[in-house]
Amino acid sequence: MIIIYFSGPEGILQSIKITDMIRHTVVFKLVHPKSSPEEKLFLDAISKLSAIPGVENFELLKQISRENNYDYGLSMEFATAKEYEDYNRHPDHIRFVETFWKTEVADFLELDYAPLI
Amino acid sequence: MIIIYFSGPEGILQSIKITDMIRHTVVFKLVHPKSSPEEKLFLDAISKLSAIPGVENFELLKQISRENNYDYGLSMEFATAKEYEDYNRHPDHIRFVETFWKTEVADFLELDYAPLI
Repeated sequence: MIIIYFSGPEGILQSIKITDMIRHTVVFKLVHPKSSPEEKLFLDAISKLSAIPGVENFELLKQISRENNYDYGLSMEFATAKEYEDYNRHPDHIRFVETFWKTEVADFLELDYAPLI
Repeated sequence: MIIIYFSGPEGILQSIKITDMIRHTVVFKLVHPKSSPEEKLFLDAISKLSAIPGVENFELLKQISRENNYDYGLSMEFATAKEYEDYNRHPDHIRFVETFWKTEVADFLELDYAPLI
């Protein structure tokens, strides 16, 4: 991360942070009924992705807007694209996708964010 | 927010935070060409929503995944549903929606998140 300091209006010191941070988010809906044991097993399994090296600020969330049909959200951050690539290729991530994601997710959308500079 | 403390494995004190936090996010695409003056005017206008009372952790982001067709993301948090409602009804928000959002946004999706407890 690079921080640039500059003199703003009325000479007040301001700063811009230049960062390579990537926030990887996925919003999804499961094939399982709400509050079922299968749903719990899936959510336990997805939570363990937080232990993969490079994963920061991991969050498993409820999606609550009625403007869409998704039920859950996953959000995690990587310091740079390198950590994100390593996560995608990590055996624990690949195993989770094969064992749980491919068969238990009814619908999903992937949204990745970077700072707008 | 309520914090519940309990005795975890080996008697270590653990805590669960019960919060009403809502993260309101919108991912969108503009009608304007990239790097155009019209795009800049829109992004300047949307940035000013951060000044509406109750808005916390305001972020304007680039959407960078090729798995979807959106270009920008907006993320903000509210302490409770009350602050979110007040934001939606705030004259500055309504004016922004009427003046910019309705005519300059080509496509969007709203996703709102709450902690998964």
